[in-house]
Amino acid sequence: MATIDEIAKLVGGTVIGDGKIQIKGMASFDFAEEGDVTFAFDEEGLQRAGKSKASCVFTTADVEDYPKTVLRVGDMKQALTVLYNAMLEMTPPGKGVIHPSAVIAGSAVLGENVSVGAHAVIGEEARIGDNTAVGANCVIGKNVTIGQGSFLAPNVTVYDNTVIGNKVIIHSGTVIGADGFGYVPMEGKIYKVPQMGNVVIEDEVEIGANSCMDRGTFATTVIGRGTKIDNLVQVAHNVKLGRNVLIAAQTGIAGSATVGDNVMMGGQVGVSDHVSIGNNVKVGAKTGVTSRVGDDKVLFGYPYREASEARKLHGLLSLLLRNASKIKVLLRELPGE
Amino acid sequence: MATIDEIAKLVGGTVIGDGKIQIKGMASFDFAEEGDVTFAFDEEGLQRAGKSKASCVFTTADVEDYPKTVLRVGDMKQALTVLYNAMLEMTPPGKGVIHPSAVIAGSAVLGENVSVGAHAVIGEEARIGDNTAVGANCVIGKNVTIGQGSFLAPNVTVYDNTVIGNKVIIHSGTVIGADGFGYVPMEGKIYKVPQMGNVVIEDEVEIGANSCMDRGTFATTVIGRGTKIDNLVQVAHNVKLGRNVLIAAQTGIAGSATVGDNVMMGGQVGVSDHVSIGNNVKVGAKTGVTSRVGDDKVLFGYPYREASEARKLHGLLSLLLRNASKIKVLLRELPGE
Amino acid sequence: MATIDEIAKLVGGTVIGDGKIQIKGMASFDFAEEGDVTFAFDEEGLQRAGKSKASCVFTTADVEDYPKTVLRVGDMKQALTVLYNAMLEMTPPGKGVIHPSAVIAGSAVLGENVSVGAHAVIGEEARIGDNTAVGANCVIGKNVTIGQGSFLAPNVTVYDNTVIGNKVIIHSGTVIGADGFGYVPMEGKIYKVPQMGNVVIEDEVEIGANSCMDRGTFATTVIGRGTKIDNLVQVAHNVKLGRNVLIAAQTGIAGSATVGDNVMMGGQVGVSDHVSIGNNVKVGAKTGVTSRVGDDKVLFGYPYREASEARKLHGLLSLLLRNASKIKVLLRELPGE
Repeated sequence: MATIDEIAKLVGGTVIGDGKIQIKGMASFDFAEEGDVTFAFDEEGLQRAGKSKASCVFTTADVEDYPKTVLRVGDMKQALTVLYNAMLEMTPPGKGVIHPSAVIAGSAVLGENVSVGAHAVIGEEARIGDNTAVGANCVIGKNVTIGQGSFLAPNVTVYDNTVIGNKVIIHSGTVIGADGFGYVPMEGKIYKVPQMGNVVIEDEVEIGANSCMDRGTFATTVIGRGTKIDNLVQVAHNVKLGRNVLIAAQTGIAGSATVGDNVMMGGQVGVSDHVSIGNNVKVGAKTGVTSRVGDDKVLFGYPYREASEARKLHGLLSLLLRNASKIKVLLRELPGE
Repeated sequence: MATIDEIAKLVGGTVIGDGKIQIKGMASFDFAEEGDVTFAFDEEGLQRAGKSKASCVFTTADVEDYPKTVLRVGDMKQALTVLYNAMLEMTPPGKGVIHPSAVIAGSAVLGENVSVGAHAVIGEEARIGDNTAVGANCVIGKNVTIGQGSFLAPNVTVYDNTVIGNKVIIHSGTVIGADGFGYVPMEGKIYKVPQMGNVVIEDEVEIGANSCMDRGTFATTVIGRGTKIDNLVQVAHNVKLGRNVLIAAQTGIAGSATVGDNVMMGGQVGVSDHVSIGNNVKVGAKTGVTSRVGDDKVLFGYPYREASEARKLHGLLSLLLRNASKIKVLLRELPGE
Repeated sequence: MATIDEIAKLVGGTVIGDGKIQIKGMASFDFAEEGDVTFAFDEEGLQRAGKSKASCVFTTADVEDYPKTVLRVGDMKQALTVLYNAMLEMTPPGKGVIHPSAVIAGSAVLGENVSVGAHAVIGEEARIGDNTAVGANCVIGKNVTIGQGSFLAPNVTVYDNTVIGNKVIIHSGTVIGADGFGYVPMEGKIYKVPQMGNVVIEDEVEIGANSCMDRGTFATTVIGRGTKIDNLVQVAHNVKLGRNVLIAAQTGIAGSATVGDNVMMGGQVGVSDHVSIGNNVKVGAKTGVTSRVGDDKVLFGYPYREASEARKLHGLLSLLLRNASKIKVLLRELPGE
């Protein structure tokens, strides 16, 4: 709970109206309730927000005679982001509600204010930190550790021995710690290599929906602190992702690859197994990274090139295409070998 | 329930045998029960269908002395499709069976003949329309609306505030309304942008298994009426998909992109964020659409070109490859800059 | 249970210490318990394994005065793989533990030692073979058959009529038997083609997490014996995969494609619908296979070429790029058409 005046101090901006009103949440005007901040990006939004149940409207516009208290801000997205993150600190996901249909092993240890949704299953010796929420139908394996203030949406699966840090967010359908893809052919048959390591997800990581982080073969797959991973992403066994890495949807990182800090990857990128990528690298969408990459590179294409080279190649191919007839004549006339 | 004679009128075709038999379903001969229509594409199929429990066999073949009533049709796939869709009208998914293990919030409102599978979880203020079925282990969030005659297979997750229309089909593992991938870097840290919008899925949409439709950031992600989406597809926050769009497996549409009506996309296509695609566009498999596309285009490749150009480029590259030795000599002999 | 001496005979290697100790499992030193084999790949590993609860340490190193019994082996990965597979034979996944919260249809038939996890749902007429384990929150449809000694991790969904063989492993989030992506446009509308076939998964198949194997339209989708499939892989309706096929993550096989025996596919590969691929073919990551491929080929790129040609093309493009200025001048000077 904070007043609009206090929020104005936090996010910057000018209060127009009653700044003493207490705020407890934030929501789009369609879903807002009393005590919520909402927002209006345009005139229509202002009208709809004005008729909503919200108690305060963020806007960049100049308003007069408005039915609700307004907080005029310079940058809506930033103001809402600052407010959201501050609220998350004050009201973490866990509320201390354990649904009676959840199946929690006797040896599991739950901290204070842990919430567990309906039909969730928590395995032997699992440890779940204070203020963490485990969604409905999640399955948490044996000896899993989850830190404080983390949030697992419904239908997340976490295999045995996984370690998840503080303030981690994992969306529905994501699978943490499944066996990596490892086989050895012997005597005309394909044998499964045991996958005996685990996954460690450091603090403040967010992972989207239906992604997969495989357990290490003999060691640990690591997702570094502050890294954010989108939906349908594959992180294979033994991968080490650095800190503050951003990985867009449907990207795949093959086994034992390492990725430095602050790397940004577009969607549908592929990184080959055992490849090492330095810090601050940017990888364009659909790029395939097949060999070692140093720091600060910008990559594009498959096989990949530096982005500036890839752009030149694209221009050159367009030039060749426009001159295709000339080139055919030229090649016909050139002496053979 | 309809007689074979009535079905013949509906789908076209000639009845050979007793047309008065009542039909109540359809199934492959291996799984057919009494009262089912089955089908035979070849001689072996005819023999197996003849020995099955089915009550009627669709075939294009000329049969005599056959142990079952036959409906001879011109186009099997079309005849079965017409019958299937007619049956779906008569026998919608919901049968009015609520499994006692389902957890349904007190404030949720279920229409007539709604079915809810074992261990499904339905949140506060959810509204589920007549004749809709929610599969086992589904999790339906708070304030979700689902229309009439829709079908959610087991293990579907629907986040809060999602709106799903009538006659929608969603397959297992699909996640509707997870947070979009939005962050802003401030002071050396990556902050999560709140994802406060929702997802609207219009009538007669089908979504395959393990796909993801993210909620809007501040507004709504829209899947237009009649659109069909395959497995493992990513639809990011704020995307607007038109009507009757077909999207094959593993395609990803990045944030805030808009796609017109009747667009067809192959598998593993990528569409960049904020890109607009017109109506009736065809996008070949694995194509990357990185900039605005007008109506009626056919695209291929990455970076994408019109398909005819992409084909020419492929031919030209093959020509260059065949003449690689000549080209090497030529380039060596050309005067430098 | 076997002694270390017996294990040494099985996997090869020299016992240093007490070979009479009974072994019952294997685990990484961080998670090992008494009676487990663990392993050490380096000096640090040896120290940590020495302090662990494990009863035996596999290593390639020469050790003296070590606190535990050591099995010195030549190839760690192979030794651990042989031991793992032998143990799997002796201690199959099913332990005969049925969680009371599981919902099992009255007409389902469970063999001996079948385990069923919490909140799993097993449909009418399902048949589950001896020693098979079905994980928590799995949903097994009507008339599904699962063989002996198979393992379904939590949150797997299996649609009606699926047939799964012996010693099959399926990881979390994977969906077997969802409807294929089939529609016919009629009178300005898109009609769903009924998907009435099923999926057959033969013995010793392993499928990773969040993958999709669609049911056949009118026939059967087949995953051949010994085939191994990674995470987030799409196998569309009517596909026939041969034996001992290896498919890496995020690859998609479109409808009605057939793949021969011993084929290896990298990650993010696409195979077009109705394409036939022969035996022993190797397909590089991100390759698109758009037409029939004979036996023993090695493919790369999109549109695909033989890998040797694709490599030459990449080299040629790099050469052209280095000579871009010369080429521009040349093309300008060449006579027009």
